[in-house]
Amino acid sequence: MSRKIRMGMIGGGQGAFIGAVHRMAARLDGKIELVCGAFSSDPEKSILSGKELNISPERVYASYMEMILEEKKLSPDVRMDFVSIVTPNHVHFGPAKMAIQNGFHVVCDKPLTYNLEEAYELRDIVMHSDLIFALTHNYTGYPMVKQARQMIKNDELGNIRKIVVEYPQGWLTTLLEASDQKQASWRTDPLKSGIAGAMGDIGTHAENLAEYISGLRISELCADISILVEGRKLDDDGNVLLRFENGARGILYASQISAGEENNLRIRIYGEKGGLEWAQMEPNSLIVRWANKPIEIFRTSGPGLYEESVAHTRIPAGHPEGYLEAFANIYRNVAMSIQAKLYGNEVDPVYKDFPDIDDGVRGMEFIYKVIESGNSDQKWISI
Amino acid sequence: MSRKIRMGMIGGGQGAFIGAVHRMAARLDGKIELVCGAFSSDPEKSILSGKELNISPERVYASYMEMILEEKKLSPDVRMDFVSIVTPNHVHFGPAKMAIQNGFHVVCDKPLTYNLEEAYELRDIVMHSDLIFALTHNYTGYPMVKQARQMIKNDELGNIRKIVVEYPQGWLTTLLEASDQKQASWRTDPLKSGIAGAMGDIGTHAENLAEYISGLRISELCADISILVEGRKLDDDGNVLLRFENGARGILYASQISAGEENNLRIRIYGEKGGLEWAQMEPNSLIVRWANKPIEIFRTSGPGLYEESVAHTRIPAGHPEGYLEAFANIYRNVAMSIQAKLYGNEVDPVYKDFPDIDDGVRGMEFIYKVIESGNSDQKWISI
Amino acid sequence: MSRKIRMGMIGGGQGAFIGAVHRMAARLDGKIELVCGAFSSDPEKSILSGKELNISPERVYASYMEMILEEKKLSPDVRMDFVSIVTPNHVHFGPAKMAIQNGFHVVCDKPLTYNLEEAYELRDIVMHSDLIFALTHNYTGYPMVKQARQMIKNDELGNIRKIVVEYPQGWLTTLLEASDQKQASWRTDPLKSGIAGAMGDIGTHAENLAEYISGLRISELCADISILVEGRKLDDDGNVLLRFENGARGILYASQISAGEENNLRIRIYGEKGGLEWAQMEPNSLIVRWANKPIEIFRTSGPGLYEESVAHTRIPAGHPEGYLEAFANIYRNVAMSIQAKLYGNEVDPVYKDFPDIDDGVRGMEFIYKVIESGNSDQKWISI
Amino acid sequence: MSRKIRMGMIGGGQGAFIGAVHRMAARLDGKIELVCGAFSSDPEKSILSGKELNISPERVYASYMEMILEEKKLSPDVRMDFVSIVTPNHVHFGPAKMAIQNGFHVVCDKPLTYNLEEAYELRDIVMHSDLIFALTHNYTGYPMVKQARQMIKNDELGNIRKIVVEYPQGWLTTLLEASDQKQASWRTDPLKSGIAGAMGDIGTHAENLAEYISGLRISELCADISILVEGRKLDDDGNVLLRFENGARGILYASQISAGEENNLRIRIYGEKGGLEWAQMEPNSLIVRWANKPIEIFRTSGPGLYEESVAHTRIPAGHPEGYLEAFANIYRNVAMSIQAKLYGNEVDPVYKDFPDIDDGVRGMEFIYKVIESGNSDQKWISI
Repeated sequence: MSRKIRMGMIGGGQGAFIGAVHRMAARLDGKIELVCGAFSSDPEKSILSGKELNISPERVYASYMEMILEEKKLSPDVRMDFVSIVTPNHVHFGPAKMAIQNGFHVVCDKPLTYNLEEAYELRDIVMHSDLIFALTHNYTGYPMVKQARQMIKNDELGNIRKIVVEYPQGWLTTLLEASDQKQASWRTDPLKSGIAGAMGDIGTHAENLAEYISGLRISELCADISILVEGRKLDDDGNVLLRFENGARGILYASQISAGEENNLRIRIYGEKGGLEWAQMEPNSLIVRWANKPIEIFRTSGPGLYEESVAHTRIPAGHPEGYLEAFANIYRNVAMSIQAKLYGNEVDPVYKDFPDIDDGVRGMEFIYKVIESGNSDQKWISI
Repeated sequence: MSRKIRMGMIGGGQGAFIGAVHRMAARLDGKIELVCGAFSSDPEKSILSGKELNISPERVYASYMEMILEEKKLSPDVRMDFVSIVTPNHVHFGPAKMAIQNGFHVVCDKPLTYNLEEAYELRDIVMHSDLIFALTHNYTGYPMVKQARQMIKNDELGNIRKIVVEYPQGWLTTLLEASDQKQASWRTDPLKSGIAGAMGDIGTHAENLAEYISGLRISELCADISILVEGRKLDDDGNVLLRFENGARGILYASQISAGEENNLRIRIYGEKGGLEWAQMEPNSLIVRWANKPIEIFRTSGPGLYEESVAHTRIPAGHPEGYLEAFANIYRNVAMSIQAKLYGNEVDPVYKDFPDIDDGVRGMEFIYKVIESGNSDQKWISI
Repeated sequence: MSRKIRMGMIGGGQGAFIGAVHRMAARLDGKIELVCGAFSSDPEKSILSGKELNISPERVYASYMEMILEEKKLSPDVRMDFVSIVTPNHVHFGPAKMAIQNGFHVVCDKPLTYNLEEAYELRDIVMHSDLIFALTHNYTGYPMVKQARQMIKNDELGNIRKIVVEYPQGWLTTLLEASDQKQASWRTDPLKSGIAGAMGDIGTHAENLAEYISGLRISELCADISILVEGRKLDDDGNVLLRFENGARGILYASQISAGEENNLRIRIYGEKGGLEWAQMEPNSLIVRWANKPIEIFRTSGPGLYEESVAHTRIPAGHPEGYLEAFANIYRNVAMSIQAKLYGNEVDPVYKDFPDIDDGVRGMEFIYKVIESGNSDQKWISI
Repeated sequence: MSRKIRMGMIGGGQGAFIGAVHRMAARLDGKIELVCGAFSSDPEKSILSGKELNISPERVYASYMEMILEEKKLSPDVRMDFVSIVTPNHVHFGPAKMAIQNGFHVVCDKPLTYNLEEAYELRDIVMHSDLIFALTHNYTGYPMVKQARQMIKNDELGNIRKIVVEYPQGWLTTLLEASDQKQASWRTDPLKSGIAGAMGDIGTHAENLAEYISGLRISELCADISILVEGRKLDDDGNVLLRFENGARGILYASQISAGEENNLRIRIYGEKGGLEWAQMEPNSLIVRWANKPIEIFRTSGPGLYEESVAHTRIPAGHPEGYLEAFANIYRNVAMSIQAKLYGNEVDPVYKDFPDIDDGVRGMEFIYKVIESGNSDQKWISI
C-alpha cells in the first residue's frame, strides 16, 4: 500500500447532498484523496466548489469531458485514478462511458443510468475493459448486512420462503419540487430521473438489498405504482408483490410520501429455521428469530460474526457506525481493488465486495419491469 | 348495575386455546359469570371441562342445542343471558343462529362463519332480532388502537394515503397438523376452517384492524396466496395489494410460516401530516411520526388520550395491559350493553364499541375476495 | 380441584386503585371468588362498594373485625377461605393478625406493616400458625422474572458481580397530596405510610426483586434519601449503593419525582459470563447479553424457558401478558396452596412460589436501614 | 476558508485503537490533513506507521520532542498547525506542554493528564497562551447531546432534580491485561493510567456528559470503588451518589466488568416538567418524557431541533450518524477555530463548542475526589 488513490469527482457542487456524502465516504479511511473535479455543469459554480474543497484551481474543470481529457494528459504519478459520478441520473452514462474509454475506473451513484439502453451499452463497455466499475448501493456496505448475507449463504436459516423489504420515506409528502428544492426537483423530473421516481431512487435499493442478502433473484412481480401527491410527474409510492426464483414469496415497497418516515429501509427474510430482520435506521443490530430457540441479536463488531462482516467494521462494538461508514466501505473496497491493480497484488476476497455493473443493470431492469407492471392489467410480469 | 351477566359457553373444552382466553377475558372485570356450557361435542369431555370450571353439573350440557333449549326453560333470574361461541369455524353458524332465535345474545369468535352464505343468513337473523351480536376481533379492544382510530377520525393525520398492515406468525413453519396438535389440525382443514387458512385465521384480523382504525374501506385487492409448507391443504402465507375507497394505497399480509415470529400484528397508516404505527406485541405505545415536528409516543393511560381510549384502560400508565385486557374490553362492553337492555338505561357511546355482525360479514367477504384473487390472473378484484 | 377459593377483601372500596387490581388478579384464573368484604372504614362506602361488586349485602361488613368474626361463624361450606388486605400500610397489621388468629389465610399488600415491630410480631404469629401468608410483591410474578431467577440459580451467568435495580416514577412530581388525590395523600402521610415514602412504596419492590432474582442478600447499604418536592413529608427520591453478601456491588434507586416516568422498574444483573436485563414496562422480553456470544432474548411463552417460567404464562408467545397477569400469578399460586391444604394434595414446586412473611420482614428491615442510612453520616450500614 | 488545517499526531501507531479513531474523525470533514507524526515511542514502529498512513518519510519523527522542534523550523506554509495527542495518559502532559510552549494548538485525548498536579500546571500554561486546547470528550459531539443541553439551558424541563448517568462496559470481565492486549495493559497499569482505571477511562466521560448537558456542577459525591476481577491493579467498577450545586440528586456509575455490555453510556435528567434520556448506543434519538403530554422523540437532523444541534449533523434524518461523526464534530470545530485564528474571522458561536482545558481539569478533580471517596469512610466528599 504505497500511495493514496486519487479521485476526480463529477457533480457534487455546492448544495448537492449526495456529492458531500461520497466525499466523506471516500475520505474516511484515508486511502483516497480528492484531486480534481467537474463539480457542476455551471463552470463558475464548479470553481467555487473546488475552492471550498481546497482543490488546486487548475484541476477544477468546467465539464467532465474536459476533466477526463486533461487528467489523461497528466503524468501517471499525478492524474486521477478514478472518477466518482454523483450527478443526477441522466448524467451517469456519459461520464461513465467516457471515463472507462479513457482508462479511468468508475464509482457511480445509482440507479445506473437514465434508461435501460444506456445500461446495456455501459455494461458492454465495462465488460470489455479491465477497469473497476462500482455502483453505490451503499446499504450493502453495512456490516450487519454482510452478516445476514453470510448466514443465509451458509444455510443457517434453511430454505428461504418469504422476503419483505420496505423503504418508506416521507420527504416528498408535499409537492416539494414546486419550491426550488434541488433534491426534489430532479428526482421528480422525468427528463432527469428517467421513467421512475421513488421506485428508481429507493426502490432499486430495496431490490438490490433483498437480492444481495438472500442470494435469490426476483423472478416475477406484480406492482401497484402510484402518484399520490397531486401535480407530481413520477411515482412517489409503489407496492410490489414478489416471487423469487426458488419459489419464495415476497413484498417490496418504496414510498416517499409516508409522512414522518425518515429513511426507514428494512428487510425481513424468513427461512425454514428462522427469520432475520435488519433495519437501516438501527443498523448495528441484526435480529434473528429462531423457530426453536431464543431470539439472537448480532451486533456490529460483536461476538459470533463472519469475517465478511468483521472486515467491514472499524471500531469496537457499542461505538455506533452509521450510514457514512457503510458508504465508506464501498470506497475502501474499491480503493483496495485499484491498489491491487496498481501493484499487482491480490485482494482478500472479503474485501472484493461492492456492487458492480451487473447490479446496476439488474436495477435498471427492475425499474423497467416494475413500472411496466404498474401500467399493466396483467397480474404477473417476469423479470 | 345490579347483577352479573350470565354467560353460557359453546366449545372451549379441555385443550382448547381460545376458549380459555374467552373465559379469562369474560372474568377480568367482574361483570360476567360463566354459568353453563356445552364445552365439547364429546359429552364426557364437556362434563369434565365443566367440573374443572366449577360449573354446576346440571348446567353442563352435551350439546349446544341442549344447552340453548334447557337454559331457555330456566327462570329469567337464573338462565344465561348470552352464549359465547368458541368452536372451530364450521360450528359458528349453527349455535349463533339457534341462540339468536331463542332470544340469547351472542359473542362469537372470528371469522364469522364457515362460508359466505352462512354469513349473509346470520346477518339477516341478527338484523331482525333485538339482540346483541359481538364478534371477537379482539385487537380492536386495545386502548392504543382506540386512540389511533380517534386521531384519524379527528383528522389529525390529514387525508390518508397509505396503509400497511402485516400479521406474521411462525407457528405453522412445519407441517404441525401432521402431529396431533389441535390448533393446527382444524385451522388447516378445509372442512372445519373454510376456504382459507392463514387469511381467514389472521388475515381477517388485519383487514378488520386496518378498516377499523382508518375508517376506510378496501375497494380493490390483488393477492398472492400460497401454501409454502408441502402437504398443507390451506394457505399459510398471503400477500395482498390494497386500494382503499378514498384512493389510498396499501399492503396487507398474513403469514403463519414466518419462522420465529410470534404474533406480530402491526399497522402503519400515513396521512398528509404524519403517520402512526401500532404493534400488537408492544401494545401500550402508539408511535406518531409527524411531517413537521418531533415524533410523539402516546401511551396506554398516559397523557393526551381521547376518552375513547381512556375508557378501555384499567390501571395507571406503566403497568402494562396486554392481550387479555384488550380481549376483556369486548366482553366488558358487551356486558354493559346487555345490562343496558336489562335495565333500560343508555350506554355511554365510548363503551358501545365492539365488532358486530357487519364486521363479521365484511371479514367473510374479504376472505372470499382474497382467495378469489389468489386464484385469478386478473390483477384487481373489487370488494 | 373441586371448588373455588373464597376471598374476603379488606379495603379496596370505591376510588381505591390497588383494591381493584387485587380483584382483577384474583378473578383472572377462575380459581377464586370474592364472597365478602369490609371495603372501607366508612360503613356506608363499604356497602356501596359491595353493591357495585355484586356481593350479597349480608356479607358486606362495616369493619374488618366484624367481617372476620361473622365469617368465622359461617359454615365451612360458605365462609371465606382467606382475606385480601389492600388497605394503606397502617391498616395491614391489625387485620392480618386477627385473620390469622381466627384461622384465615392472608394475602396482604406491601410493605408488610406500618413499622418494624409489627412486622416481627406478625412473623411470629404467622410462623406459629399453619396458614398461608402471601405478600403481593407482584413483580416477582412475571414469567421473565422467574426465568431470570432460574438462569442465575443454574449458574448460567457465573458468579454475580453487579446488580443495578431502579424504579423511577413521576407521578409525585408536584405536591399532588395538596389536592384530594387519595393515592398521594396516604402514601405521603407518615401516620399512614410509616417512616418511608418512595422507599417503602416502591423501593421495597426493587429490593425484593433484586434479591429474588439474584438469590443474593444485600449486606450493606449507603443511602441518599431526599424530599425533592417542597412541602412533602416523606422521601420522594432515594439513591442507594449496595453491597451483597457475596461481594457483588450494586445500585438501587427509587423515585417518584422522575417527571414523565410511568412505572419503570428495571433490573440488570451481571455475572462473569454475561448480564441480564428485565424491564417491567416491556415485561415479555428478558435480554441476556453474553460475554462471548450474541445477545439472546427470551420471550414469555417462547422457546428455551425453564418450567418455572412456563408455569406462569397463560397464552402463546406474542400475546402480551402484563401487570395483571403477573399479579394474578400470585393469587393463582395462593389458591393452589389453599386448595392443597383443603384437599390434602401436594402442590407442584413450580407453583409454590409467592412472596411470604419473610420477604415482608426483609422489606421492612430494608426500609428501616435505608432510612437510617439516609439520616446518617456513617457511610455503610449493615443490613 | 482557504486551506486545510495541518495536524501532527503523537501516538496512534500500529495496533492503537484511539489513534485510528482520531484520524478518521479528523479526516471526515475534509478540513484537516495529517502531515506528520511521532506515532510511537519505538522509532521503527513510528516509521512503519507513517508509511502506512502515506506520510512523507521526512515528517515521520522518532519522538514528539523531535517532531515539535523540527516542525517549528518549517515554513508556516508547511508546518503543522496543531498536535493531536493520542498516547496513554502518562504521555499527555509532556507533549501538550511542549506543543503549547512552541506555539502549536493541541487536541488531547482524555483524561487530561496522568495526575492532578500536571493538570493544574497544564492549565496555567494553556491559560497564558493564545492557543486552542481541546480535550476529546467526544460524546458531547453528538447532535442529540447538543439538543439536550439546549433544551435544559432554555428551561424546557424546569428546575433539574435528578440526574442518572451510567457507563457500563464488559470488555474487562476477564483479566485481559494478563494477555498482551494493548488496550487493557496500559489502562489497568497505575504507572500509565494514573490513580484510576474505569473511573478515569470512562467515569470521566460520564461526569463530563452529565455536567455538560445539565449545565450543573457536582458538589458532593459518595463512591464505592471496586476491583472485581482478581489480580487487577485499578478499579474496574465504581458506583457513585451525586449531589449537584442546585440540590439535584444523582447517580453515576462506570463499569468495565458488566459482562456483555458494549459501550452503553446513557444519561437521564429529570426536571420539574419532564425528563430526557439519551443513550450513546442509539445516539440519533433523544427521548423526552413530559409530565403532562405525550413522549417526544427528537431525532438527529429531524424537526424541532435547536441550531446548536443542527450544526453538528451532516446528512438528512434517518441516515444514522455515529461515534465517528460525533468525534469528528470536535475536530471540525477545532479546525474552524484554528482557521478563524489564521484568517482573523469570527466563528459562529454554535461551532465554538468543544471540551477545553477547564473540562480537563474538572475531570482530573473528579477522578481524585471519586477515588478519595472510594477509599474513605466519610460519607460525602466535596468537589
